[in-house]
Amino acid sequence: MLENITGGQLKKMTFKELLALCEEAREKITETVLKNGGHLSSNLGTVELTVALHYVFDFPKDKVIFDVGHQCYTHKLLSGRYEQFDTIRKKDGLSGFPKRSESEFDCYNTGHAGTSVSAALGIAKARDVKGEDFNVIAVIGDGSFSNGLVYEAFNSLRLLNTNILLILNDNGMSIAPTVGSMHEYLEILSREQPYAEKKNKHAKIFERFGFGYDGVYDGHDLEKLIFKLTEIKERLKTESVILHILTKKGKGYSFCEENPEATHGISAGNGKVREYSSVLGDTLTALAAENEKIVAVTAAMTSALGLSDFFEKYPERSVDVGICEEHATILCAAMATEGLKPYYAVYSTFLQRSFDEIIIDICSQNLPVTLCVDRAGISGADGETHQGVFDLSYLGLIPGLTVAVPKDTDEFAKMLEFSVGFNAPLAIRYPREGRRLFGKTGKIEVGKWEKLIDGDGKFVILACGERAVSRAVDASEKLKEHGILVGVVNARFVKPLDCEMLDSFTEKYILTVEDNMLAGGFGSLVAVHYGGAKTIANFAYGEKFIPQGGTDELMDGEIGVGEICGYILKNENR
Amino acid sequence: MLENITGGQLKKMTFKELLALCEEAREKITETVLKNGGHLSSNLGTVELTVALHYVFDFPKDKVIFDVGHQCYTHKLLSGRYEQFDTIRKKDGLSGFPKRSESEFDCYNTGHAGTSVSAALGIAKARDVKGEDFNVIAVIGDGSFSNGLVYEAFNSLRLLNTNILLILNDNGMSIAPTVGSMHEYLEILSREQPYAEKKNKHAKIFERFGFGYDGVYDGHDLEKLIFKLTEIKERLKTESVILHILTKKGKGYSFCEENPEATHGISAGNGKVREYSSVLGDTLTALAAENEKIVAVTAAMTSALGLSDFFEKYPERSVDVGICEEHATILCAAMATEGLKPYYAVYSTFLQRSFDEIIIDICSQNLPVTLCVDRAGISGADGETHQGVFDLSYLGLIPGLTVAVPKDTDEFAKMLEFSVGFNAPLAIRYPREGRRLFGKTGKIEVGKWEKLIDGDGKFVILACGERAVSRAVDASEKLKEHGILVGVVNARFVKPLDCEMLDSFTEKYILTVEDNMLAGGFGSLVAVHYGGAKTIANFAYGEKFIPQGGTDELMDGEIGVGEICGYILKNENR
Repeated sequence: MLENITGGQLKKMTFKELLALCEEAREKITETVLKNGGHLSSNLGTVELTVALHYVFDFPKDKVIFDVGHQCYTHKLLSGRYEQFDTIRKKDGLSGFPKRSESEFDCYNTGHAGTSVSAALGIAKARDVKGEDFNVIAVIGDGSFSNGLVYEAFNSLRLLNTNILLILNDNGMSIAPTVGSMHEYLEILSREQPYAEKKNKHAKIFERFGFGYDGVYDGHDLEKLIFKLTEIKERLKTESVILHILTKKGKGYSFCEENPEATHGISAGNGKVREYSSVLGDTLTALAAENEKIVAVTAAMTSALGLSDFFEKYPERSVDVGICEEHATILCAAMATEGLKPYYAVYSTFLQRSFDEIIIDICSQNLPVTLCVDRAGISGADGETHQGVFDLSYLGLIPGLTVAVPKDTDEFAKMLEFSVGFNAPLAIRYPREGRRLFGKTGKIEVGKWEKLIDGDGKFVILACGERAVSRAVDASEKLKEHGILVGVVNARFVKPLDCEMLDSFTEKYILTVEDNMLAGGFGSLVAVHYGGAKTIANFAYGEKFIPQGGTDELMDGEIGVGEICGYILKNENR
Repeated sequence: MLENITGGQLKKMTFKELLALCEEAREKITETVLKNGGHLSSNLGTVELTVALHYVFDFPKDKVIFDVGHQCYTHKLLSGRYEQFDTIRKKDGLSGFPKRSESEFDCYNTGHAGTSVSAALGIAKARDVKGEDFNVIAVIGDGSFSNGLVYEAFNSLRLLNTNILLILNDNGMSIAPTVGSMHEYLEILSREQPYAEKKNKHAKIFERFGFGYDGVYDGHDLEKLIFKLTEIKERLKTESVILHILTKKGKGYSFCEENPEATHGISAGNGKVREYSSVLGDTLTALAAENEKIVAVTAAMTSALGLSDFFEKYPERSVDVGICEEHATILCAAMATEGLKPYYAVYSTFLQRSFDEIIIDICSQNLPVTLCVDRAGISGADGETHQGVFDLSYLGLIPGLTVAVPKDTDEFAKMLEFSVGFNAPLAIRYPREGRRLFGKTGKIEVGKWEKLIDGDGKFVILACGERAVSRAVDASEKLKEHGILVGVVNARFVKPLDCEMLDSFTEKYILTVEDNMLAGGFGSLVAVHYGGAKTIANFAYGEKFIPQGGTDELMDGEIGVGEICGYILKNENR
């Protein structure tokens, strides 16, 4: 059935057929995600909701925005993308997130939490300005609901004088279980019965902001969802509505239902590696045993960042604030003013939300907060919105911030040990997987690099981070076969640069390699340092957003061994 | 009295003496701000509150954090800084904002809105971890209260299991009048009487998040404030409390009371200039008459950005969302998906809050939003937290964003005209004041620069923005007196660079001048472009936060005519 579905057809289906359609979608999603990797439990949780939305509303005339977007698979299946569904998250295939460029059914790209309400309001406002007539719907999880953006959007609903439907998909989880008072409030709303009474007593908060409130407390009951959405469609002509539904992450797949955090995102096989996150967890837990000032802060992904044990062992020194990256940053700064030693662990792409607070709260006050920046560099199958390729640039421009980049997991552990005694703002950035150990990690000193391979004096490669160092070493070894001896340096501090070493090079050609954007990145700092005194070749990512694909697949062709060797061979005889 | 006050003394004063102290503080503040410039009305509004706080609490053992910080003058006067108060906002003088480096009475630096609740929670949490005993107070205005950070902090209050006092200083104003549903809610809270009933019926929102609520609805009634704070001090042993007080911005100075928006910040005389903001207002209003797609969005400072007339003339195409920079950014992106042409006008320093949304929502979707980035470059007397010196770096690193920098107000108008037909993300950055017209503005083409002065082939200066161009032209003219002909180029696009022109230069020395950080800025993009093919000297700001001072005073010595000439004279005979 799913195979040939189009918008019009679904509306003519019997209820029994719709139920069968849900099961078919669920199977297709499970089968595909187990093969390609991707978001499993969040998608299994929204199958009935999405079928109901397509039954009641008229897409693409009506618009639906999926917050974060990791629950849009059923929507893709129902909007003409069944045939390509096998390619999801693969290079040149379907995106795992909504993409305007992919289909007119995707009206707004998402990836980071909390943006959907603002986006829905903007689209609705534009509709009103243009005098058009359609419905605008945002689907947001209770995890995103803790983000400050949602409050900012709520605060302006009446001001914008427009109507939207906000579907609050409440499954009690971010990637980790949802935390905070808003979550407790939602529990009260969904627990207490009967509805009429609850509406009067408890839904006041939403009403204050101009939303009518309604609920379907079994969000897998297709009949009730269709009934309620049909009713609400009428109400939208005169008001904005929040529809609160309760769903189960991983619904219909018992392994997921029982392990929602572990099955939030599934990776397609990675090979044997040690993840940097587990090094963070082990090292920080050990360090905290000796230093009672150490505290750890996360924003809704404690386990993925390797900190579950730390949180269990030191509950009074651990805070998961939910998806509130800005708040987390300031909490750390403030705790540091009182002499604590905070570690804020976060994905590179999400730390973008904290940019202003890193500048103002941490660095302008020169506070000893350590940012543990995980999933740095290309992160692969999640695509444009999740690549951690901007951090060396946006951290590198901030005065007073030291930026360290370990060449392997052993060096990462050493840097963490070093950080305890370092009394100023520090960021350590690293990718997800550690694949290689270089077996040589001297003492960590701020702004001091490490020579890994000596060259014969014409070329030296400055590489930062495991992926870059690994490629530089491989290139050097390959070129040795051609009789060219190329030096390799582990540039383990991007800021400050090792100016002494930079000034000591007698090589004519300096190559820089980094898993980051060219603009403002490591290579640009080196180019500025030399001011024309050396011939410089920067291997980094150019002026474009990097789509989904395998991490190696995406890196090679940009910062690969082939590119490095090619440059050196071309310039060898000049 | 004020002259000799110390914490202990104030507590021994009679009520009559305290009232006299308030008047004295008010006079001192008014007199000083009229001389030095600064925040007048916000400081006049919090005199009684601050005296009451100092009477009831024990600073610096207890901690107070002033949100934004532009209401901390009385606190400075009461904490041993009376003698230096005349130097406020001057180079090397007292800061106009709280500064840890200035006094132990300033426990946390602020400058951007909404950070105080998070900071108070962090300090309180640290206190609990360390097992210490003191009170933590945040003073926040109703303007800041619309920022998402406040909600994020509220959401984690119970989670952190700690107690703070939050004083909500409600004067109905941000810089502009406060907008949004939270503001309406606060009005209801303060309007409806009696208190007992209100508490039960309306203060539910705060209680949901774990705050007890109380109010003093005349926030200039010193007696009531002291009484209530004393009572609350006891409550803080077991719970967190919000104290809602109503104050009048500019209290006690009738000109301010009647003109709170105009007297929010007062500048110490500037000379005759045309402000870029007035060019934005005039030009955009004219363009909007011909193009009904144009909409304008601001975040709580419509008038300062020059858009009052636009908002009055096109109310249905104008949105001021309050201090919600992230939400404003997404609103613009979403409106652009529907074919509107949004202009988001904002100060450079506050746009830092939108960094993630510019990347993800605007640029990764390639949407034609125009960012009008005001107060770019050094902004002067407000100091570290308000300098707009990071934008060329943090905007320059974003793929797909075109970054334009007009050399004067005439060129700014031309760029705005150009922007209407430009169908991609665009940022135009400019300082507050326009001082000089260069009388030559050809057609604006993306990535095309303009030669202003021809040189004799050894040196060329690439300058971006009025301040840099002005200095480059002056340097060139001065060097002409020495018989050295130095070329000057108006590099009016920082991204993309004019690579064709860059590759055409026969000069050996390339100088870049910008009112921005060196790291990741214009000069670094030029250095990367050349990769060593030219000798490059970058004039930009180095690795430090730039304190308060006059704008020229701060620029000279870094990117001044003297520096530029010095470099050229030194290298002329090489």
